[in-house]
Formats: sequence, structure tokens, C-alpha cells
Amino acid sequence: MKSQKYFIFLLILLFAFAMQARAQSHSSTYETQIQEWIDHWTKAFHEGNVDAIMALYSPDVIAYDIVPPLQFIGAQAYRKDYIEFLAQYNGPIDVEVRDLHIFADRDVAFAQGLERFSGTLKSGEKSDLWLRFTSGFRKINGKWLNVHDHVSVPTDFETGKSRLDLKP
Amino acid sequence: MKSQKYFIFLLILLFAFAMQARAQSHSSTYETQIQEWIDHWTKAFHEGNVDAIMALYSPDVIAYDIVPPLQFIGAQAYRKDYIEFLAQYNGPIDVEVRDLHIFADRDVAFAQGLERFSGTLKSGEKSDLWLRFTSGFRKINGKWLNVHDHVSVPTDFETGKSRLDLKP
Repeated sequence: MKSQKYFIFLLILLFAFAMQARAQSHSSTYETQIQEWIDHWTKAFHEGNVDAIMALYSPDVIAYDIVPPLQFIGAQAYRKDYIEFLAQYNGPIDVEVRDLHIFADRDVAFAQGLERFSGTLKSGEKSDLWLRFTSGFRKINGKWLNVHDHVSVPTDFETGKSRLDLKP
Repeated sequence: MKSQKYFIFLLILLFAFAMQARAQSHSSTYETQIQEWIDHWTKAFHEGNVDAIMALYSPDVIAYDIVPPLQFIGAQAYRKDYIEFLAQYNGPIDVEVRDLHIFADRDVAFAQGLERFSGTLKSGEKSDLWLRFTSGFRKINGKWLNVHDHVSVPTDFETGKSRLDLKP
């Protein structure tokens, strides 16, 4: 009878450890999953594939983009914004990401970093631009979807100009 | 002996349910905690209390602020940025937050919204500004700390100007 009680205690202890280990090992798994999201986005954006881009977003995404208005509410509005942005370029946009940091838990994650967009505009002019980005994610039905984007450059308050010339 | 096995099974089941219930009830608790963080920040910012502001940040915070450079790395750099921003104003800055969304899990959270800063500049001129903000949080030693801020207005690419005049 004594060994039976000991067995019960051991079983509960094992279960608790298993739950803990699962939670901890998942943290780095989640980060890998967000890295995969970013890789998928980068590929889709480079290809100018708007359907593939928007498949990565939640229908209720709210985006603070580099261009006005203050916010794009919902995937339909943000899709239109993507189409207009991509239409400025002739051919693919190269994306370089640096200083990337990913914070991920079971159901909520965010990533932040600097991204460089380089490509040729419709006018023939070359464009080379460093932006700051922050993206927020939720796991919805087992799949990570972007629920929030924030993309910008800083403002020079003396001139009122956007600092489109900064490099990291 | 049969009832003993049944008891063990029941005990494990109860434990599993307890873990699950704990995880779910915490989700809204975490959101409340992030709301409290925002309330503390708003109060400290309104009072121009830099020590109280910086107590809310992680030492390794990375901030993409409204002003250059592209990024402020670490609390010391960001503190200096806060001091310079607050020094532009004469008296307190009123903060209004709207369209706030909070996403929070056990150890990772982020919040996004629009914020209005209104106050009087050192020159005597009134300033009234709507910004977009995104903040990322991690729970460190049981306390939510901000590890990332992103604050901006959109860019008008035709004029190169920052759109400091937008209202939600």
C-alpha cells in the first residue's frame, strides 16, 4: 500500500514535469514557426504574389503601413494597399532582413527588425529603402496568422520630412 | 485494487483539467496586466517622470521611435530619447489612446493603437499629434516589461513629407 501511494506521487510528478518540458520546448518551436512565416512572406512579396501574401494574414488584420492613412483595417483594405505598393515597381523587389528579433509563446508572438526593399520603379529609377517593421501574430486554428503590421521610417521634425535615406 | 486504479486515473484527469483551466483564465488576466502597464506608462509620461517611464522597460529594449535614428538599442539610449522628447514641451503632455488592441499569452504580449499627444511646446506653440504605436512585452521574473516600441506616422512619397496632420 505504501509503494502504491509512492507510485501515485511519482506519476503526478512525472506528468507535471512533462507539461513543463512541453511548454519550454515549444517556445523555440514557436520562434521557428514565426521565422517560417517571415520566409513565406519574403518569398511571396519578392514574387509579387498578392494571394500568397494575403494567405498569411488574419481577416481582421490592422496595419500601420509606410503610406497613409493612419491604419488599414481588415485584410481587404490591406490587400488593396499591397497591390498599389507592388504596382510602383517594375519586376521583383529584393528583401533583406536584419536585426530580427522574435518573441513567441503558445498563441501570441511578435517579430521586429529592419528590412531593405530594393528594386526598379516603373519610371526606371532604382529604389533602395531601409524600413523598420513590427509584426504581431496569433495562432488561429493551429496556424500562425499575422494580425498586425507596423512599417515606418522616422520623421525629421525640423523639416517635416520622412527620413527615407537612413541606413543601419 | 480496482478502485485504487480508478482513483489514480481521476487524479491525473483532474490535474490535466486544472492545468488547462489555468492557462485559459490567465489569457484575460494577461490582457488586464498589459492594460495596467499602459495606464502606468500614460501617467508617468503625462508627469514627465523619466525614472517611472524607464522602470517599465527591459534593459535590452529596442525602440523604433518617431524621431531618428532607425533604432534605439538599449534602455540607456531610449531614456536619452525620452528626455529629449519631453524637453520640447512646456508642462504636461496629454495622452489619448484609441483603437487599442491587446494580444497576450503567458510570457509574450503586444499592444497596438493610436495615440494623441497634445501639449504646449517651449516656443509657446500648441502641438497636437496623432501617432500609431505598437509595443511588445515579455514577462521577466513575473513582471511584464516592454522589450520593443514602434511609434510613427505615415510617409507621403510624393512630397517626402511625414503626415503629421492625420486624424483617425
